[in-house]
Amino acid sequence: MEHLIEKNVDLLKKANIYFDGRVTSRNYTDNEGVIKSLGVMLPGEYTFGTKAAEKMEIISGKVEVLFAGVESNWERFQEGDTFEIPANSSFEIKVEEITDYLCTYM
Amino acid sequence: MEHLIEKNVDLLKKANIYFDGRVTSRNYTDNEGVIKSLGVMLPGEYTFGTKAAEKMEIISGKVEVLFAGVESNWERFQEGDTFEIPANSSFEIKVEEITDYLCTYM
Repeated sequence: MEHLIEKNVDLLKKANIYFDGRVTSRNYTDNEGVIKSLGVMLPGEYTFGTKAAEKMEIISGKVEVLFAGVESNWERFQEGDTFEIPANSSFEIKVEEITDYLCTYM
Repeated sequence: MEHLIEKNVDLLKKANIYFDGRVTSRNYTDNEGVIKSLGVMLPGEYTFGTKAAEKMEIISGKVEVLFAGVESNWERFQEGDTFEIPANSSFEIKVEEITDYLCTYM
């Protein structure tokens, strides 16, 4: 994990709640003005769309990801791994263990 | 809700995960040095113990709470409500709808 604590951020109180609460996150703006989101995904399979490009960092947990336009090539990511999703795209994610993540909007 | 955004806070990246992820939260220190936690509880019934006294604010959702030492007197709280739990105590909580909350350690 790059940093354990994000210093001097502006944190939105209200949570984002998706998939009946099986994925939740909270947005903040870091001290350089970058918008990020810290969240938790419970086991399950989800599809997400992107507007901005996103960088996902797995803080803990285990997932498999299928990027849009890629046929049957699931990639595994776990603690400390990162992956990027282009703008205006989508990805499917299988959450195998409770996954704590940081999403950075690029 | 007192403030929509908490400004200039130090946010711990790693989530707290309880009850198989049905309750998750993330800790931060506000700009006056007060330790707080923003979390989400999925429907269910949970028991929590306190070390420090806590003030809970329901950002959204609906719960019933039974404070330690009180017999069968469940109290209802919902969006905008707050309640306090003394130090070294406990409470039972029935989460009726997905509940987004702010906990302040006092």
